[in-house]
Amino acid sequence: MSALLKQRVRYAPYLDKLKKADECVELFKHGQYLGWSGFTGVGAPKAVPQALADHVEKNNLQGKLAFNLFVGASAGAEESRWAELNMLLRRSPHQVGKPIAKAINDGRTMFFDKHLSMFPQDLTYGFYTKDKENEILDYTIIEATAITEDGSIVPGPAVGASPEMISVSDKVLIEVNTQTPSFEGIHDIDMPVHPPFRSPYPHTSVDYRVGRTSIPVDPSKVVAIVESTERDKVPPNTPSDGKSQMIGAHLIEFFEHEVKMGRLPENLLPLQSGIGNIANAVVEGLAESSFKNLTVWTEVLQDSFLDFFDSGSLDFATATSIRLTEAGFDRLDRNWNEFSKKLCLRSQVVSNSPEIIRRLGVIAMNTPVEVDLYAHANSTNVIGSRMLNGLGGSGDFLRNAKLSIMHTPSARPSKTDPTGVSCIVPFAPHVDQTEHDLDVVVTEQGLADLRGMCPRERALEIIDKCAHTDYKEQLREYFDRAVFHAEKAKCMHQPHILRDAFKMHMNFQENGTMKLESWDQKF
Amino acid sequence: MSALLKQRVRYAPYLDKLKKADECVELFKHGQYLGWSGFTGVGAPKAVPQALADHVEKNNLQGKLAFNLFVGASAGAEESRWAELNMLLRRSPHQVGKPIAKAINDGRTMFFDKHLSMFPQDLTYGFYTKDKENEILDYTIIEATAITEDGSIVPGPAVGASPEMISVSDKVLIEVNTQTPSFEGIHDIDMPVHPPFRSPYPHTSVDYRVGRTSIPVDPSKVVAIVESTERDKVPPNTPSDGKSQMIGAHLIEFFEHEVKMGRLPENLLPLQSGIGNIANAVVEGLAESSFKNLTVWTEVLQDSFLDFFDSGSLDFATATSIRLTEAGFDRLDRNWNEFSKKLCLRSQVVSNSPEIIRRLGVIAMNTPVEVDLYAHANSTNVIGSRMLNGLGGSGDFLRNAKLSIMHTPSARPSKTDPTGVSCIVPFAPHVDQTEHDLDVVVTEQGLADLRGMCPRERALEIIDKCAHTDYKEQLREYFDRAVFHAEKAKCMHQPHILRDAFKMHMNFQENGTMKLESWDQKF
Repeated sequence: MSALLKQRVRYAPYLDKLKKADECVELFKHGQYLGWSGFTGVGAPKAVPQALADHVEKNNLQGKLAFNLFVGASAGAEESRWAELNMLLRRSPHQVGKPIAKAINDGRTMFFDKHLSMFPQDLTYGFYTKDKENEILDYTIIEATAITEDGSIVPGPAVGASPEMISVSDKVLIEVNTQTPSFEGIHDIDMPVHPPFRSPYPHTSVDYRVGRTSIPVDPSKVVAIVESTERDKVPPNTPSDGKSQMIGAHLIEFFEHEVKMGRLPENLLPLQSGIGNIANAVVEGLAESSFKNLTVWTEVLQDSFLDFFDSGSLDFATATSIRLTEAGFDRLDRNWNEFSKKLCLRSQVVSNSPEIIRRLGVIAMNTPVEVDLYAHANSTNVIGSRMLNGLGGSGDFLRNAKLSIMHTPSARPSKTDPTGVSCIVPFAPHVDQTEHDLDVVVTEQGLADLRGMCPRERALEIIDKCAHTDYKEQLREYFDRAVFHAEKAKCMHQPHILRDAFKMHMNFQENGTMKLESWDQKF
Repeated sequence: MSALLKQRVRYAPYLDKLKKADECVELFKHGQYLGWSGFTGVGAPKAVPQALADHVEKNNLQGKLAFNLFVGASAGAEESRWAELNMLLRRSPHQVGKPIAKAINDGRTMFFDKHLSMFPQDLTYGFYTKDKENEILDYTIIEATAITEDGSIVPGPAVGASPEMISVSDKVLIEVNTQTPSFEGIHDIDMPVHPPFRSPYPHTSVDYRVGRTSIPVDPSKVVAIVESTERDKVPPNTPSDGKSQMIGAHLIEFFEHEVKMGRLPENLLPLQSGIGNIANAVVEGLAESSFKNLTVWTEVLQDSFLDFFDSGSLDFATATSIRLTEAGFDRLDRNWNEFSKKLCLRSQVVSNSPEIIRRLGVIAMNTPVEVDLYAHANSTNVIGSRMLNGLGGSGDFLRNAKLSIMHTPSARPSKTDPTGVSCIVPFAPHVDQTEHDLDVVVTEQGLADLRGMCPRERALEIIDKCAHTDYKEQLREYFDRAVFHAEKAKCMHQPHILRDAFKMHMNFQENGTMKLESWDQKF
């Protein structure tokens, strides 16, 4: 037992349950329902999942020792390995990584995505285990960075759905990570309460704290403590580029206009921003702008937020996970006293709560796969069928924000055409965000402010402001033809020609580009 | 001045502003932005809108005296007349009636639908008047059933968006309806507060009251008081029939099962139900069931709820509007003391609040146009383009409910085929509710419990349990072909063949039925 472990585990009875990861393997049986801590690739258990993967690999148990796995969002390298070893029967509500996307799209892993605010509550309702005899999780494996005197769990860089999973788990395994610095004090934990006994969430500002800094657990449920010495590994962040910087600039101009018109306060309202180079460019742009005393209410924080804090423009940021690179975690650790005063990690039901997002008037910004002429957006399924990562919190934020913004490049390269994929399409072949949910669409071309517009006005605005020049004419032709057809058919609310609606996608499937020879082209 | 009017208007200075409806006509100019009270065809102003319509008709001002009109939801006969007289430039967020649907689908009226919980707040933010110089409504015309001593307004059978409209209106006209009984005491009014200054809604039960029973208004804004003597006219309710009763029976069996499994309390949770014969059948079924001490948190109450109260099973019901037939209003009036103790009408931002719906764990039930194999639903646009009534509160409830249920007949008649329209389709040609929002789909054929299922499992369950027997095989063939294609293309998450996805709709357009000769049929 390492001295560090003894120091981190302040509830002595747990130390009697200390096991090595490979000693835990025998607890797990094919078909069990498991919960893991973790969110956006950090804070997930590592030692026990690796021991299980080693066991499967060594004994050729691929597909024979497999599980129904629930994690708050994506887990990290261990779930990729599980996917490669056919250890995932079922997975929800979000995932990242080629091996798991492959398992889903090959049809080996049954996956469903659900609003991240709703997933933990539906899990505690028993909705996802309704076909199981005892209706609860068999095991939750949770990474802790400390254990308090009463045996409750101090998570690492992610809270996620751990409180809910532990509350409905038959048994709990705790991996105490002694390599990661303790995150004690940074968390604010809400435990689930079911209707009709719920109270309002009291949060009226981004820095509100309920005051519970660890996750309570019934010690009799804890079957093992395992020391883990592996740190989270997050790939380097995608840097901003010319296009994403242009998107950032359009947005900052828009915010300045809204402040001028009195529709936003001078320090804006709490910001939500996703992952990726556009999100980074927006954060960089805000850090360099004249906006001061900004706040962030989001689901995940990245390295760019450390710079944002350093710029002096950001007063406080809260999320359910802080997904940093190794360098970022080191920087956080070196400046812990300073950063930890301005940071709070919450349960994902709280970070993504419709109640709080609407109350605070969050400004939500997310990247879709594509947006259609009437402002429906596809966030999840390429060409309608191939799963990327899942819905995440995009619906939680975009449905409830004061300003709901989607940002995307106007076009992306295909294998054969540098602008072979238009991100503005006639009809989204999968709809995750509806026309009733988006206020603003922005690309490097410009910003379409859709508030108060009827669908036909939206189409013209989106084509005019957002579409790539290579596609403007083609999209306009679709719209004009649809209007011509709709005028005769008396269905002018949202003109479409169903025969043509997916032709750009079909052409991409057949010819590798969304550029059509003609709208009369046959497929 | 009638004695009744004097009695109803308890703030004397208003009586100096008494005008006849036709004396108000001159206030209105082409292109103005107007708010009306009203929700689901009741509680809207009648005298002034009729006087304006008469003026337009008499002076051939069709299209020359026209307005941007906002109402909480649908208004009633007067807005139909405005639509016929081309008096509606723009309309949001909901409407009912052939003339207005025609104006929208002909392209004469620009309409957009928005979540009913969000519409009033976006209006107060100035989002819908952003292209207007002063960014506010020119006039709000509100029906009152009484005026209190401080000049504030006691609405009639609908609260809707009146509090928000009055708060952002330059001038206010009050129609005091002396024919409708006063509804004083039945309302509970919330006034808008903007972020970052919002507090939690304190509602923790359906009968919670904030305590404000009238809508405050700055008396200097009130430019006229008009006596109105016309009652609300609501068409007779669609009675339940064999099919809708079967849907009701499936649902009650499901609720009984959920109680048995411990996933619902014995008196269920607050119920939301829409308008129409299925909703009526469900309410009838519940009234006859063994469930007791039921409660209702919904947006509109119909006549069937009076029977529900009389059955003794319903303890309390709350909504933003009570849409009764004339006989229903008389019955309410005769039994006012009894009914009014069990009823509360709230602002639509509260009745439809995501915050409260999620907190209370509402059971939401709504009827779509169609549901697709993966549980996306179309609530608004027939064949993707022709607007029916608008989204209403369906998204507010289905996104946030504990149990999100859509009920529909499995098929509807077309002109030439008694089952020419399948309500289960491969791909919804307009998506208002996403796959992430529905738990249960039920038709007269059976109930599909989709919780925890991946998309392919959902498709099989929906075809098996919900599709009409005339379409089961055809839908199964689509799915099998899509899976075959997706296995090769490695996109098994949500198998689709985009070329075929809308063929049932195209066949309906061309041949009047969704029954295909073959999936290889060309369009």
